[in-house]
Amino acid sequence: MSEFELIQRYFTQRQSPPSYVTLGIGDDCALMAPSAGMQLAISSDMLVAGRHFFPDADARMLGHKALAVNLSDLAAMGATPRAFTLALALPQVDESWLREFSQGLFALADRHHCHLIGGDTTKGPLNICITVLGDVPPHQALRRDSAKVGDDIWVSGTLGDARLALASYLRQQTISDEAHRQSAARLHQPIPRIELGLALRGIAHAGIDISDGLIGDLGHILQRSAVGATLDCDALPFGSILAQQAIQTRYEYALAGGDDYELCFTAAPSDHAAVLAAAQRAQTPVTCIGKIEAQSGLRLVDKNKQALHLSLNSFDHFSS
Amino acid sequence: MSEFELIQRYFTQRQSPPSYVTLGIGDDCALMAPSAGMQLAISSDMLVAGRHFFPDADARMLGHKALAVNLSDLAAMGATPRAFTLALALPQVDESWLREFSQGLFALADRHHCHLIGGDTTKGPLNICITVLGDVPPHQALRRDSAKVGDDIWVSGTLGDARLALASYLRQQTISDEAHRQSAARLHQPIPRIELGLALRGIAHAGIDISDGLIGDLGHILQRSAVGATLDCDALPFGSILAQQAIQTRYEYALAGGDDYELCFTAAPSDHAAVLAAAQRAQTPVTCIGKIEAQSGLRLVDKNKQALHLSLNSFDHFSS
Repeated sequence: MSEFELIQRYFTQRQSPPSYVTLGIGDDCALMAPSAGMQLAISSDMLVAGRHFFPDADARMLGHKALAVNLSDLAAMGATPRAFTLALALPQVDESWLREFSQGLFALADRHHCHLIGGDTTKGPLNICITVLGDVPPHQALRRDSAKVGDDIWVSGTLGDARLALASYLRQQTISDEAHRQSAARLHQPIPRIELGLALRGIAHAGIDISDGLIGDLGHILQRSAVGATLDCDALPFGSILAQQAIQTRYEYALAGGDDYELCFTAAPSDHAAVLAAAQRAQTPVTCIGKIEAQSGLRLVDKNKQALHLSLNSFDHFSS
Repeated sequence: MSEFELIQRYFTQRQSPPSYVTLGIGDDCALMAPSAGMQLAISSDMLVAGRHFFPDADARMLGHKALAVNLSDLAAMGATPRAFTLALALPQVDESWLREFSQGLFALADRHHCHLIGGDTTKGPLNICITVLGDVPPHQALRRDSAKVGDDIWVSGTLGDARLALASYLRQQTISDEAHRQSAARLHQPIPRIELGLALRGIAHAGIDISDGLIGDLGHILQRSAVGATLDCDALPFGSILAQQAIQTRYEYALAGGDDYELCFTAAPSDHAAVLAAAQRAQTPVTCIGKIEAQSGLRLVDKNKQALHLSLNSFDHFSS
């Protein structure tokens, strides 16, 4: 099969292109008319077999996840998804794999009206690189450098079930088949919090998505904003499966587990009610888990404000 | 070395960000203010070791080439380069490789004021995925579907030396060391024809860059424009090294050799002088090599208008 046939057969999105896509797949470049007065938000993520997913990963779930992790970056900026490119290296043309992969990909893309406008396919060790484009009004993006002393720290959804699933796959943790199935869904099928990101425009100050673990990702906000924080570890919204585990595991996986793809954001305490209203509009639960402080560093405490001394490592896709 | 340190050390562009880059590397997304009234041109290319380049390829040249093939796509649309993202999978952290790669990359990026705004780094089999962003005024892009019957067909620079270098590497062809050195420069250091693409705005109808070989790439214009063409193969601008080879080799490599990254474009015969003036402004030689015709298919003739029956295959990075 030629590259052209492969694209025609598997990467033609059924949802017709939105009006801002002037020219889609099939030319040297795609052409898009940016929304007047909006800022363009751009992110690229590369997923490598054996590193970001198991080599035998379900292709439909992989199609979903490859786009989801990119959409999650748009969500973390408060940007509206508009379009994406897909570059794909494949060891061989496996038609059933391609069918499943593209179905998973497009189901999520269609849900967010995000249009595939171009890309590349080539032979090579399995590698999926997606670049997403979205837009956000000027000065409303949830940047990492915008946390303010006194801000509440919030997190969406629940944390740690994805890490628990990984531990189960790696036989670091033994859980029931049903618990494995449910937590694995969190690992393989992350939900990009697009609606929440949009609802938080003009309310939240700083934002990031949790891909490498809460403490590592919150750490980026602290560093870029030149602030510190205290987290109440008993306030953490543990995943429903993780909640049945020992306390040390709960802390560890919720704080340092990757692949949650929830949003962590900060907002003024005076906007507490506004955050809850935004979360309700977005139909996404949120939990207040701590405070931004002037003193640098991240302090972990329990519900009695006693310091917790945990040894945790955040995940780094390069060094680890 | 963490991903963060790696990016800090090797992927911080010395040329300061242009004013339209509101937020560069280091957040969930980059933010850009698009130029008012302009169309955005977007392209992604993925380069895989052993397929698009030799695994032991010179890192500096590879940095150049990875961006050059993407800029070439912008050139082929008549778009001004603005920004790019880089996703990089590396088998290990090799600091001297990274230094050389980024030097080659940024030397070309700086020349075209194209700013690195984000990306991803991960461990994995060597893979380089770049997405470029440029802009072009509405209705001035050189699209593949815009060739008109009667148009002249033009090509920039010279063709086939890159293919000759590849043949020499693969020992399909024996050439002198000096000839190899010169032709290899064409293979490893393609020059994206940005200035020519810009100069042809409002003059050329259709355009494409020659990555897979002239007949294959011109074929995309013919197909998308629903036209045919006749090429005068004796008018082809053979590469200076290729010009010393046998006639059959000249035809074959100039017509079906990949990696030239010249532009092939069409324009009305009444704009012949305007094309030459544009080429002069862009300081890029161009040659008229044929005609767009209503009859479908591509006809190859010699200078006496006698049909040439050549058996040629265009390169497809997927199927071949």
